[in-house]
Formats: sequence, C-alpha cells, structure tokens
Amino acid sequence: MQTPDHSPEPTPADPGIPERVKTTKVAVIGAGPAGLTVANLLRKAGVECIVLERHTREYIQTRPRAGMIEHRVVEMLRKYGLADRLLRMGDTHGACEFRFGGRRHLINYAELYGGRQHYIYPQQELVTDLVDAFLAAGGDLRFHASEVELHDLDGSRPTVTYTDETTGERHRIECEFVAGCDGFHGVSRQSIPAGEITEHSYQHGIGWLAVLAEAPPSTRYLIYASHPDGFAGHMLRTPTVSRFYLQCPVEDSVGNWPDERVWAELRKRFAVTDSDWQLSEGPIIEKRVLDMRSHVTEPMRYGRLYLAGDAAHIITPVGAKGMNLAMHDAERLAEALVAHLGEGRSDLLDTYSQTCLRRVWRCQEFSRWMTEMVHAPAEGSGSFRARLAQARLEHLLTSPSYATSFAENYLGLD
Amino acid sequence: MQTPDHSPEPTPADPGIPERVKTTKVAVIGAGPAGLTVANLLRKAGVECIVLERHTREYIQTRPRAGMIEHRVVEMLRKYGLADRLLRMGDTHGACEFRFGGRRHLINYAELYGGRQHYIYPQQELVTDLVDAFLAAGGDLRFHASEVELHDLDGSRPTVTYTDETTGERHRIECEFVAGCDGFHGVSRQSIPAGEITEHSYQHGIGWLAVLAEAPPSTRYLIYASHPDGFAGHMLRTPTVSRFYLQCPVEDSVGNWPDERVWAELRKRFAVTDSDWQLSEGPIIEKRVLDMRSHVTEPMRYGRLYLAGDAAHIITPVGAKGMNLAMHDAERLAEALVAHLGEGRSDLLDTYSQTCLRRVWRCQEFSRWMTEMVHAPAEGSGSFRARLAQARLEHLLTSPSYATSFAENYLGLD
Repeated sequence: MQTPDHSPEPTPADPGIPERVKTTKVAVIGAGPAGLTVANLLRKAGVECIVLERHTREYIQTRPRAGMIEHRVVEMLRKYGLADRLLRMGDTHGACEFRFGGRRHLINYAELYGGRQHYIYPQQELVTDLVDAFLAAGGDLRFHASEVELHDLDGSRPTVTYTDETTGERHRIECEFVAGCDGFHGVSRQSIPAGEITEHSYQHGIGWLAVLAEAPPSTRYLIYASHPDGFAGHMLRTPTVSRFYLQCPVEDSVGNWPDERVWAELRKRFAVTDSDWQLSEGPIIEKRVLDMRSHVTEPMRYGRLYLAGDAAHIITPVGAKGMNLAMHDAERLAEALVAHLGEGRSDLLDTYSQTCLRRVWRCQEFSRWMTEMVHAPAEGSGSFRARLAQARLEHLLTSPSYATSFAENYLGLD
Repeated sequence: MQTPDHSPEPTPADPGIPERVKTTKVAVIGAGPAGLTVANLLRKAGVECIVLERHTREYIQTRPRAGMIEHRVVEMLRKYGLADRLLRMGDTHGACEFRFGGRRHLINYAELYGGRQHYIYPQQELVTDLVDAFLAAGGDLRFHASEVELHDLDGSRPTVTYTDETTGERHRIECEFVAGCDGFHGVSRQSIPAGEITEHSYQHGIGWLAVLAEAPPSTRYLIYASHPDGFAGHMLRTPTVSRFYLQCPVEDSVGNWPDERVWAELRKRFAVTDSDWQLSEGPIIEKRVLDMRSHVTEPMRYGRLYLAGDAAHIITPVGAKGMNLAMHDAERLAEALVAHLGEGRSDLLDTYSQTCLRRVWRCQEFSRWMTEMVHAPAEGSGSFRARLAQARLEHLLTSPSYATSFAENYLGLD
C-alpha cells in the first residue's frame, strides 16, 4: 500500500494560467458505482488514482437510482471488504411476481439457480459506502470538478484538466490511464474521435413514467404487471420509499401525470381478482419520463481511455442490469489496470472490451426479451406482438427449463 | 364402421339447375395434411365425411412443401395406423447445425429432450399416405372441386356447393359441420363475415428465396447459417433432393436470382474455416420468393365452420412448425367432432379454438425468437439488433437451460 496523498500539490504549468498539476497512475472520471469501484479496487492494490466528480458529495449520496444488486456483484464487493453495510442493511430477494389477466404469479427464481438471491440496496447507499471506504483509505476524491477535458488519450501520457467549482481554479492531472466512468452524457465517450468507435443504438418505442413515493412497499416481492393499457412495475427500495413505473408514450411529459392520475393508473394496472391485495399510497417525491433505449459503444476503449458502466452502454431498467453491468466492468477494469501497472501484463487490458461486451450483449438481449414480455407493444406493432408477449409470459410460468433460463439471466450469469 | 359411400347420389335440387346433392356429417374443405388427417380420423371413428380438393390427386401428391415432422405428430399418426410408411421410409433427426463466424456448431437437441427426434419425411409423401388410407377405407374424396361456396354456417344445417371441374356440374353437400382446411388463401376463412373474427398479422420484414435442387444433401443435419449478408438454410428432403433458403429483400423477385448467383451466395453464406466442408450442387427445380409473415385468426371458428391449419394461421418456416400445427389442429378437431357427433358432448368443440391457439401462439413466439436469431436484421433496425441475434445464438450454444428450452420447443411441447 502506498502513502495516502490527497492534498493537491500546487504546480502552475504556465505563470499566466493558474493551474494546479498533480501526477497519478489513473484518473477516474465520475464517482458513480463504476468509478468508485474502480478507485477502491485500485487503492486496495496500491495503485494511485484520483477520482473527479462533477456533483457534490451530498448529491451523489442521496440521488435515488437503481437498487437491485446481483449475488455475483455482492460477492465481489465482499471479497474486497466493501460489502459490510450492504450485507447488514440490504434485503435479499429470490422471487418476483408477474401479474396479468387479474392474477398473480410468483416465480421463486432463487430456487431455480442454486439459492442465489438479489440484494435490495439503494444505489445511493452503495455509493455512500464506496465513498466512505475510499476516503477512509486516504483516496483522492474531488467533488465539484467541472469542465473536465481529456487530452492526449492516444499517447503514452494522457492528461485531464478540470475546474474546481469551489475555487474557480483550473487543475491538471497527468496520468497513465483514464477510466471513463461518467455516464452516458459524460465527457469521456464524447472525447473519442468520430470513427474510432461504433455506436449501436436501439429505441424500444416505449416510455416509462418513473415515480418515487414515500409509501411503504405494497408487496414482499417486486411486481411486473402486464396490462392491456401498458406495463406497471412496483420496485422495492426501503421500508418507507417505493419505486413505481408506468408505461407511457415515449413523448409523454410529467405534466400529464398529476399524482391522482398516477395512483389511479397504478391501481388499475395492478388490480387483481384473486385476492384482496391493496396498493399502499403516499406522497410522490419524484416523477420522470424515461425513453426506453439501449446503447452500446464498441470497443469500450480508445488509446489509454477505458470506458466503464453507463459511459459505454445503457440498457433499459427491465431486468435491473445497468448498475450490475457497471460493477462488472469496474472489476474487470481494475483487475486489468492492476495487472498492467503492477505486473506489466497487458493481456487483461487488451481483452477488457471484449470481455465486458460479451456480458453487455447478453444482458441487452435478456433485457429486450423481458421488456417485450411485460409491455403492451408500441403503437403500430399491433395485436400480434401483444399475443406473443402473453405467450412468452405463459411459457415462463409453465416451463421449468424456460424459467431456469430466466432465473440464471435475471440473477446474473457467471 | 359405417358402409363406405363415395358415389354421389344424383338429386337435383331445382329442375332448372343441374345440382347433385349429398348429405354427410362433416364437409372437409381441402386435402392437405390437416384436411386429410381430419378425414381419416373421422372415418376411423365411423363419422361420415366428404373431402373437397381444388387440385388433382397428382398435384397434391407431388407438390414439395414442408418436411420436418415432430415426434408428437408421428405418435399421433401411429396411434391411428397412419404412420407405417413414414416410419419405414422417413429419416430421424436429433441434431441441427448453426453456422456463424465461419464455424460450425452442432446442437444435439434430442439428448436434451429425452431422446425425442424429428422425422424427415416430405409433406407430399405424407399426403400420399393419407389419401391412400382414406380411399382404402372407402372415404369420399373429390378432386377438381372448384368454386366452393359455404352457406348457412351460422345455422344448424350448413351446406357446401362446388363445381366438379371434370364435368362442369354443380354439387351440393348438406352437412352438420364444415372443417375449413383449405389454407391461407382458401374460401373457408373468407366465408366468415367481417367482425366475427380478429386477424392478427405480423410482417417480419424478411424475404426468403426458397430453392429446391436435385442435389444430394451436403450435410447430415440441417444447417442454419447466420451470415452478415443474411441467413442461409440447408434443409433435408430426400437422398437426391435438397431444399435451400437464402434471406433476400422482401420485394425481391426470382428474376434477380439466376442459378449461378444462388450457388455463389449459398457457398459464401455456408463457408466455414474450421473444416473442408463442401456444398453439393445440382439442377435447380424450383425457386420462389417468400415474404416472412405470420397470421393468426381468433377464434378459429364461426358457427359450424371450424378452421384448421393454414386456413387459421400461418407461420414462418423457421422452426418448421406450420405442418405440425396443422396436424395438431386436425387431431383436436376430429376428436371434438367425434365427441359431439358420436357422444353428444360439445365441450371439446367449445374449447377447440382456445386449445389450438395456445399452441399456435407458443409456436409463433418460438418461431419469431428463432427467426430473429438467425437472420440479419431487416434494413433500418441496424447493428444493435444484429448483435442481439449473435448474443442469442452464443447463449444457445453455451447455456444448458437455454438449449433445453430450445430443444423442447423445437421438438414440440406436449
């Protein structure tokens, strides 16, 4: 382990431009789950890095996002000593419920895959743990870093410049590698010259109204409801906060969804005739319209920039793969950087993109399969597709091999 | 067993219009696999029927169509004593080959589903067997029956009129039920008033050039080749005749496909780098362009008309489900008619459509899944879909549960 070093050394590059310069091995752009995991794993292996984050610490530690973590990811975090609070506070889930035709159908998927389970743990809690661990280990994590620019990515010595918003000062980081973990709209992927990567995009033609409510869960297991008027989802976050999704037109807006309409639509789409199930309601604290789209960047690198997580690929929330993919990328990237910087082995860096993309495409395929299964088809694709979705769901509920394949993909393939 | 009766009784209905009238229990429209199976099963149960076929006997006994029969269907034919020649002459298959990236991948699907196998037996041979069996049992099968019209389907006593093309005479059949087995373009479905049924249609956006060649098979197992330029299929018919499929634009025409282009494209799409496999060539005896489309009619009945096979639903050839579905419908319809006419039980007739459609939609879902997996995506859906297809195929070749689910669907679910 090297000595912690998180006080930037003032070294103006040019007397005319106040610029603080720092040298490190890896510049990590973005302090989401991917960036923080890369940073923690590097730190634990004694590889120096600096993490830049555009937002404040409070922002990233309270922003609600994903919440379902694969067994495989938790095992990885445990291995690196990063899962203590997760294991203590997180809930585990091995079943989910599909609703259609007014009936409830539970799938005990954990039983179909050797007892593996999901962990239910809000992303902001995981981010909090990873920030705490990194800082406790003396990591250099800089919030409020704006106007990030990446330079000389195709050379042997890339640099990263940014402005510290609290002081207005421009900083420069000299490094050997850049880990681009700053999400879909981040600067990392946008810094790659056109023609050096291929962007694969897919529009599912489906919108979601994502709702966060101060309502206790109405269900032990999360619910995927397939209703003729569209999908409704009940996800689990905490004992007092629940997440709901309602399928809506892609071009819909939050203004069309006053709270009373949200609850009426949720009640209708979740309605069952085979029990006296009731929806618990409460104040709505967030509403957003999401466009179900998918995107993959190939390869996930350019020169000495390696992309991880949403910076390289986005996926629909169906199947809850986004954060899990990000964590997989992060582990592979940290391993590859440690092998290179610690042992001089470049094989893992060379195969990083291919290794990650194999899982990314598998998850994209699974997510589209599941998206099609639980949604009313987009306008124009008609009644045929709706019947196929129903046939797929019925097969899932009746075929042991089909259900086993679902369980393996949903819980996360090895 | 009742007395055979196949000499039409001359009973002019109106002195001015020469019309021969015959009374029977069931009028079966169409002598394809579905109609002939219905007719044979009714005959064996002692239920009187008359089969009308537009074409000549020679035409239906030589027209090449499907060729892969599910184990389940063969068991049904065996039970009714209709499988003797099939079991003697047909080949059995329990594996198929997927090709992509220049490599061959064999799936022994029979091993994954209790040793069940497909039978390879050309449809025209099965039709020949079913015609022979029906006539040998004294069945009334009328070829060259044109201008078929169905009347009073919603009453208790429907009638069917047609013209015997060999004599030009108009005939009339009075019956209790009509079995509509005359295919997608037949008169049966078209006789149902608008609004009484729902038609579900789906265009896959994919064309196939279907080629029949006097060439011995180049493979022990049939081949599904997924090439960036499009799908190529090598199906098996007889030791001297093979069927090939080439993905092409939907609006393509046979004129664009001189024989030399067909062979060049087949060689390219089937090419492998991992063995010295060679394509056997020979004279091409048939070329047709097919538009991959699917269609389902709900319900599969109107009044006393019951639809079976292609008259009710069409499916892409991928997965070889068309004839197998037709045979399933036929068995269910014959059972239901026998239960009603023999025992006065109407429950099977009442549930006929629902029972058949459950299997139809399962097969449509499977066929679309498989179609997407082996085809280059249609224009406009881009590279994302192509990568998903590849991920699906790779998962099929590496996941035991996914492969088992494929095997069950491909070989035919119970």
